[in-house]
Amino acid sequence: MSGDERQSEAAVFHRAAEYQPPRSWRTWLIGRPLPTADAPHQTIGKAVGLAVFAADALSSVAYAPQETLVILAAAGVAGFGYAMPIAIAVSVLVVIVTISYRQIVFAYPNGGGAYVVARDNLGDVAAQIAGAAEMIDYTLLAAVATCSGVAQIVSAFPALFPYRVALSVGLLMLIMLANLRGVRESGTIFAIPNYFFIVMMSLTVGVGLFRALAGTLGTLPDPPPMQFTGTLQPVTLFLILRAFSNGTTALTGVECIATGVTAFREPRSRNAATTMVWMSAILAALYLGITFLLHRIGAVPSEEETVISQLARTAFSGRGVLYLGTITATTIILILATNTSFAGFPRLGAIIATDGFLPRQLAFRGSRLAYSQGIVALATIAALLIVLFRASVTALVPLWAVGVFLAFTLSQSGLVLRWWKIGHLKPGQEIHERRSTLRHEAGWLPKMLINGFGALCTAVVTVVFAVTKFRDGAWVVVFLIPLLVMAFFAIHRHYRRLAAALSLEHSGTPPYIARHRVLLLISGVHRGTLAALHYARLLSDDVTAVHVSTDPTEAEGIRRKWETWGEGTRLVILESPYRLLVEPLLEYIEEILACRQPNEAITIVVPQFVPRRWWHNLLHAQAATWLRMALLFKPGIMITDVPYQVE
Amino acid sequence: MSGDERQSEAAVFHRAAEYQPPRSWRTWLIGRPLPTADAPHQTIGKAVGLAVFAADALSSVAYAPQETLVILAAAGVAGFGYAMPIAIAVSVLVVIVTISYRQIVFAYPNGGGAYVVARDNLGDVAAQIAGAAEMIDYTLLAAVATCSGVAQIVSAFPALFPYRVALSVGLLMLIMLANLRGVRESGTIFAIPNYFFIVMMSLTVGVGLFRALAGTLGTLPDPPPMQFTGTLQPVTLFLILRAFSNGTTALTGVECIATGVTAFREPRSRNAATTMVWMSAILAALYLGITFLLHRIGAVPSEEETVISQLARTAFSGRGVLYLGTITATTIILILATNTSFAGFPRLGAIIATDGFLPRQLAFRGSRLAYSQGIVALATIAALLIVLFRASVTALVPLWAVGVFLAFTLSQSGLVLRWWKIGHLKPGQEIHERRSTLRHEAGWLPKMLINGFGALCTAVVTVVFAVTKFRDGAWVVVFLIPLLVMAFFAIHRHYRRLAAALSLEHSGTPPYIARHRVLLLISGVHRGTLAALHYARLLSDDVTAVHVSTDPTEAEGIRRKWETWGEGTRLVILESPYRLLVEPLLEYIEEILACRQPNEAITIVVPQFVPRRWWHNLLHAQAATWLRMALLFKPGIMITDVPYQVE
Repeated sequence: MSGDERQSEAAVFHRAAEYQPPRSWRTWLIGRPLPTADAPHQTIGKAVGLAVFAADALSSVAYAPQETLVILAAAGVAGFGYAMPIAIAVSVLVVIVTISYRQIVFAYPNGGGAYVVARDNLGDVAAQIAGAAEMIDYTLLAAVATCSGVAQIVSAFPALFPYRVALSVGLLMLIMLANLRGVRESGTIFAIPNYFFIVMMSLTVGVGLFRALAGTLGTLPDPPPMQFTGTLQPVTLFLILRAFSNGTTALTGVECIATGVTAFREPRSRNAATTMVWMSAILAALYLGITFLLHRIGAVPSEEETVISQLARTAFSGRGVLYLGTITATTIILILATNTSFAGFPRLGAIIATDGFLPRQLAFRGSRLAYSQGIVALATIAALLIVLFRASVTALVPLWAVGVFLAFTLSQSGLVLRWWKIGHLKPGQEIHERRSTLRHEAGWLPKMLINGFGALCTAVVTVVFAVTKFRDGAWVVVFLIPLLVMAFFAIHRHYRRLAAALSLEHSGTPPYIARHRVLLLISGVHRGTLAALHYARLLSDDVTAVHVSTDPTEAEGIRRKWETWGEGTRLVILESPYRLLVEPLLEYIEEILACRQPNEAITIVVPQFVPRRWWHNLLHAQAATWLRMALLFKPGIMITDVPYQVE
Repeated sequence: MSGDERQSEAAVFHRAAEYQPPRSWRTWLIGRPLPTADAPHQTIGKAVGLAVFAADALSSVAYAPQETLVILAAAGVAGFGYAMPIAIAVSVLVVIVTISYRQIVFAYPNGGGAYVVARDNLGDVAAQIAGAAEMIDYTLLAAVATCSGVAQIVSAFPALFPYRVALSVGLLMLIMLANLRGVRESGTIFAIPNYFFIVMMSLTVGVGLFRALAGTLGTLPDPPPMQFTGTLQPVTLFLILRAFSNGTTALTGVECIATGVTAFREPRSRNAATTMVWMSAILAALYLGITFLLHRIGAVPSEEETVISQLARTAFSGRGVLYLGTITATTIILILATNTSFAGFPRLGAIIATDGFLPRQLAFRGSRLAYSQGIVALATIAALLIVLFRASVTALVPLWAVGVFLAFTLSQSGLVLRWWKIGHLKPGQEIHERRSTLRHEAGWLPKMLINGFGALCTAVVTVVFAVTKFRDGAWVVVFLIPLLVMAFFAIHRHYRRLAAALSLEHSGTPPYIARHRVLLLISGVHRGTLAALHYARLLSDDVTAVHVSTDPTEAEGIRRKWETWGEGTRLVILESPYRLLVEPLLEYIEEILACRQPNEAITIVVPQFVPRRWWHNLLHAQAATWLRMALLFKPGIMITDVPYQVE
């Protein structure tokens, strides 16, 4: 290496660091690329965090009460009487899970979703089960929130009803683009409407409660057609459990914050925990208030008008400005709730990919520092679900509950085990376990009991739901989770085997190459062929030119021209009576490979015409491309393109 | 070259000649591959030739009379009175063109379609116009004959009416498969139904004429709804010319035989000419008889029932066995008439491709010796037309006449010029012109006059049709032909320039390579990388390993491992702050290229992981593939894949 070259390469080193990527259509869609060094600044405070992570939970008041009523409708008016007790039960569950998860946020300041907690405390199998459950949940959240948002729009503008599938998919794509731009900007976009929703929904519930107390609320005018059309059933425990299960869809948001702790500004655990408590309090209050009022006004679940729309037009006495405000706020927050998924799903995908259980590409950050591939994957699957279920929230919701509560159970169980180990350490003692360091902590027992109680509750709920909602759609998830777990382990096995096989420590260096044989493919004798011949002779003294002949006259012409221009290189003409190109060549190469020594390399040099215009490709048979595809799977054969352009 | 190697290569030479291609799904669909040596045996006699080439012309009696009536229907019953005079005019035109074309078959024993005759006598521009017109005609023939065949089926089984587009496309695909098997077998398949049609149609017309003379024919019972629904128009010359134009669709078959002379057994010119005369005689007789009877029974043109069906059920007094026989025969011959296109179109495509005006691939024979690519192209375009025009014969026919008569005019004009030149040679004198040798011939003047009269008639007809049918659809063809001709010349220019640029005589040999620089791309340090390093060092002493770094920690790890395993090869690490792979590398290569000498070669060695299972591809970023696509367009850079497999 000369001094000159050293200097030039050092220059390259620095120039690359100042490299500015060019603007393109991607820049226009998702913004200018951000350098990796910008990553740590992309964190959010409590106020924006509430918007990014809590939109999911808060917006669920738009569909969870409705989906409870859909089930109860099977028992007629008698059924609707159970809506309020169910709402209270859901609220109690919210409190239990929030208290339990608050401890997770503090124990896992680097993000403690069900996957991470299960991985660190319960082992790989439990972790992958939790991971599969969580990924399914995020996907369903994205689909349900988008569809419910469109259902609100359709309530206000019934003429849009036939276009709800297209509207849902379109909105999903917009959210995807916003997320490809990166997390901080999405937070800013979403903060204002999120607070607008809290104000409008509180106002609706407040006015409704005030008028109910004053006795001026009245009942719903012009109720829409009820969604349930079968024969009336008695109120059974089974029916109530199914309704309860639909109601618990409100709980998903809790998990999201625990996974996304790292997105918060420091002190991140405290910020995340506070956000979680706020969120749960607002959620429980709105959920109870809405359910109470729905029963009072006699609202009916309907595909054509959401119960929120029914409540708002009763509370505000008609479709005035306040009604439209409430519907707008609900619509926007629901559509933005999808963003929770777009924050959580790719982040979880990247964690699992880094552990080697998902394709590694999911861990690469895109030009805007977002995990682009995960974002696109989520949007694709959710869009598919929306089309498949024709944008019906009622059809999508039954798939949801099992995964959510399975993840809850696994993460809380993991924490129980953790407290148990911590409790049995001596003061000052530390143990290093997998990824975390455990130190003795005072007050481990109450913490363990809280998490244990949470885990017990959610475990019971999981089993109950898997049974009661099995026929409604939970069976899909019950079968999908083991399949996903198997896929995760298959991927992991592949990466592990590959790493072992490529390891220099275990397998040693590959053998040295002592001899180099070069085959030069020619279709004719012209400048392009001769350029390739000069290159081939540079590589080795052992060059054979090979021509596959479909026409003896043409082959004779090539042989004669080669005598003049072939520079003494030997020429083999392979006759191809069936006018095939690749097959006779493969047979010839097979024969050469059969008597090859381990330290002999074989290179095939293929002159490839590179056209000036794209359509010129259609005028050439592009044999080189076919050949590459056929030879790529033969071990130990190198293929070299020698391009020739014509000016 | 050692003696051993010479022997082994001689063995290879022979083994390749006995190479048997493996059986596969293609074998099942289109038959065992045929060796090139079998080609000359694939010729046909007069009887089979009539089936292969005349099915087009004969089958046209099924739609040409009907499409004449469709136009006349605009003038009501008064219009139908002109059907018989128009039929007589069409028959006269058939006689004139047949006599004129008989001379072409003898003058061009190697196939004298409009393209070849125009090329040899009128020059490239006229030839390409004729070629474009002929290719359009073949395509329309395939579409019209298929649709008309399905219209016959639909006449007998009205329940199938809604499925006519799908039926048409399905039948087209079957014909395509039959043709991919090769020409002789298609001839055998098609001979029997062809003669069945001649017998059944003669019987229908015969019975009809007999009963008409005996006065027992009567009129059509239950006529279907008439196709024309606008307001009545007076009978104008314009209307009659449009009707005449539709009637002349019967003439296309004549051209096909002239193009396909080589497919006939020796003496091929005589065989082809005799077949042509037979065909024209049968055609004229059936055309006149059918038109006479249609007028007599009061048949009406209808999309729901073809006039052939109306005629047959009137002549045979109901939908009995004879009726079904006629409909079956007509259906089969129409569908098989498509075969005329599949014989002519690929053959013409191969001729034009050999002249360098169409992609050369069209001149390659497939595994069954058929011009597979032309066959598939024809089927694709015709299927598209069928879908676009919803399988309506009436919608497709107006596109047709201009191209047909333009081709007629050009080929006959070419022959006129040829006779003129021959007439002005001295006895015994020969001139060599382009592809043909002209010798003095006695009786050149009457031949010239016959062809001249034919050319004049068809030239007048072409202009009349271009004007009268312009709005009905002829405008498509009027604009398409110049566009196609321009495309043909663009292709020709490309091949000519390429040949000149690659020519060793004109441009000389490319410069010698004196220095070889090798760049080795690495993403990590492992067995795969080291195998590539050994290979790179075999190629040149000037090797630089290049790593694009998105993560400084990882880059540092690679640097340290390279110190141990890199065998002293220099390593350049390119920082990529925007996490891009290809772009920084391209910049680096640009810089190297900027100071390259003309006789320095640069090879980029890319270790490429080759997975054992296809889905493993999803688990790897496949940077090598992206890189190849980006670098392929840089002149003078060779790219070598070093594959590494893991057992």
